[in-house]
Amino acid sequence: MSKGRLEAFSDGVVAILITILVLELRVPQGADWAALRPLLPVFLTYVLSFVFLGVYWSNHHHMLHLADRVNGKILWANLHLLFWLSLVPFTTGWMGQNHFASVPAAVYGVVLLMAAVAYSILQRTIIAGQGRGSRLAAAIGSDAKGKLSIAIYATAIALAFVNQWFSDALYVTVALMWLVPDRRIESRVAG
Amino acid sequence: MSKGRLEAFSDGVVAILITILVLELRVPQGADWAALRPLLPVFLTYVLSFVFLGVYWSNHHHMLHLADRVNGKILWANLHLLFWLSLVPFTTGWMGQNHFASVPAAVYGVVLLMAAVAYSILQRTIIAGQGRGSRLAAAIGSDAKGKLSIAIYATAIALAFVNQWFSDALYVTVALMWLVPDRRIESRVAG
Amino acid sequence: MSKGRLEAFSDGVVAILITILVLELRVPQGADWAALRPLLPVFLTYVLSFVFLGVYWSNHHHMLHLADRVNGKILWANLHLLFWLSLVPFTTGWMGQNHFASVPAAVYGVVLLMAAVAYSILQRTIIAGQGRGSRLAAAIGSDAKGKLSIAIYATAIALAFVNQWFSDALYVTVALMWLVPDRRIESRVAG
Amino acid sequence: MSKGRLEAFSDGVVAILITILVLELRVPQGADWAALRPLLPVFLTYVLSFVFLGVYWSNHHHMLHLADRVNGKILWANLHLLFWLSLVPFTTGWMGQNHFASVPAAVYGVVLLMAAVAYSILQRTIIAGQGRGSRLAAAIGSDAKGKLSIAIYATAIALAFVNQWFSDALYVTVALMWLVPDRRIESRVAG
Repeated sequence: MSKGRLEAFSDGVVAILITILVLELRVPQGADWAALRPLLPVFLTYVLSFVFLGVYWSNHHHMLHLADRVNGKILWANLHLLFWLSLVPFTTGWMGQNHFASVPAAVYGVVLLMAAVAYSILQRTIIAGQGRGSRLAAAIGSDAKGKLSIAIYATAIALAFVNQWFSDALYVTVALMWLVPDRRIESRVAG
Repeated sequence: MSKGRLEAFSDGVVAILITILVLELRVPQGADWAALRPLLPVFLTYVLSFVFLGVYWSNHHHMLHLADRVNGKILWANLHLLFWLSLVPFTTGWMGQNHFASVPAAVYGVVLLMAAVAYSILQRTIIAGQGRGSRLAAAIGSDAKGKLSIAIYATAIALAFVNQWFSDALYVTVALMWLVPDRRIESRVAG
Repeated sequence: MSKGRLEAFSDGVVAILITILVLELRVPQGADWAALRPLLPVFLTYVLSFVFLGVYWSNHHHMLHLADRVNGKILWANLHLLFWLSLVPFTTGWMGQNHFASVPAAVYGVVLLMAAVAYSILQRTIIAGQGRGSRLAAAIGSDAKGKLSIAIYATAIALAFVNQWFSDALYVTVALMWLVPDRRIESRVAG
Repeated sequence: MSKGRLEAFSDGVVAILITILVLELRVPQGADWAALRPLLPVFLTYVLSFVFLGVYWSNHHHMLHLADRVNGKILWANLHLLFWLSLVPFTTGWMGQNHFASVPAAVYGVVLLMAAVAYSILQRTIIAGQGRGSRLAAAIGSDAKGKLSIAIYATAIALAFVNQWFSDALYVTVALMWLVPDRRIESRVAG
């Protein structure tokens, strides 16, 4: 079974999620600068979520490049990842419209955490299908960055109830950490 | 005529339907846990419909893998399937917002039933085009799972007027029954 | 320049239009059969527009199959067609919500007419690029069905101001006329 | 790393943006010609933005045709471009619903300006990856049209506060200037 259709389908879902995100930026009533001000937190959350979805798309791109074939398990592990990503527009809208309140900031983190776990499951499913000498396993190594992200998300969820700015700072940290595409895989592909 | 464009178009429609589904999860007014509670039935219906669309996409993927070429009849049988699937976000939203009331639960089942019938028509159209020795016919066999699903949907529609929880339980049963990708085809492709 | 990306882009736009169409079917307030009744005209208009978009996608599929290469003119003639198709959800929603009133029924026809003209321009642009011995020109012949459709749309627009049911009947006529994929091209491809 | 998936993803995003644009054309309450009149500025802005997105898609198509391979930098430069394009439906809606008022007209220009800058960055990133003898660099030359567009956008933003019609006229000018696909690249591809 070829992986082309899996890639195309995932690309389609992520492309739509990225554009649905922007629907939360509702056209304001007024026509002056003041009308834009209440949109600022929504806009900033939009930028953050855009980067997260971009990171997932980019890493997914790299990961599938090292996958050989697709079986039913991989297909569902991928749908599981897309499920959590599909909730990002909802949590983005909720966090953005509530000026970074505690519960929406925590729920935003829960969805990111679950997406990271789903990504990790997908990765392991592909590696399991490749058996020994898996190219993906070799490229990923200990996957320290993936594990660290999950730990930071968990911390951010807890800290949202202390002060939501801690969580926001941690989400931005993870986004920046991944903004650079995964050089481990890229160098292996090039090498 | 190649089947690539038919696959890409179907993938596009299903990818959009999956993401449009989540638009029914409207951002709540409040910013606490209580604000999320009324969304729970909508969320559960969303998960159910996501799984159904995932099952259709996965089975469609497997089925077209065994198709050779595409003609006008197959193209329209496929559009007919997409038509019924396109109504899933509507019935999902209606059922979710009405706490699983009788009529919405029955209409939800009607759309699933019609989609299953459309899938079966598409399957038969492809087999008819392959003539004797059809690889798809051999892989599917008696299609017991497909026929059983249609029977369960019909039962669920009737039971929605007795107690909607019966229907909900039956929909979940069908979803779980299909969550495992069609091993008959997969083993044949691998074999 | 390859035609693959033009096909993929057009498929994407039509796939999204088909699914955006269904967004006009808003989830009703009530949970009984009576709540569905006001949706009936919207639903019927939805079915009609779904068929029209399906016809365009199917014919576009066949037409590009006979195109050799894509140049800038073809690219813009194609975008011009997509522009008119993109207005179909708007006119569908307006006609559906106004129980087939005169002006919305006429405007619905104007968009279909312009899409048909745009399709014809795209066809001529591809043929012009192929020069003599164009395979597409040979397959299409006099394009009687295309010209007839344009004439029927023009009649339907005028008749919308007499009685909108005439227009509705004419739109259904054109849809049925095209529901059968273009055998002239299909037989040529097969032959 | 192949460029196919980058093209497909970009096509997906632009296809969705083009169709989301039309969602700002809300179905009016009335059913007569008067009901359409308030939609006229929204419609005209829609046409303008449709042309801009079409121009970006067409030029992107041409540019990637001359790209060889895709690396992480190109991937993110492309996402950066898509980010600014994703804001076009928002600015289109805001400008259209405010009858071309000053601030919305200026913000519309800011997003176009940033998209043009992002396009230019993407172009330079691809050229940098190709090194000497870059086919894209040769095809683009001094990129006078790209630089001129950026200058016109900047002027249009400033003039929006004098009289918004100046900006509107300038936006239309840029759109017309690009409506012709980039012959420099096309002739090179053909040659």
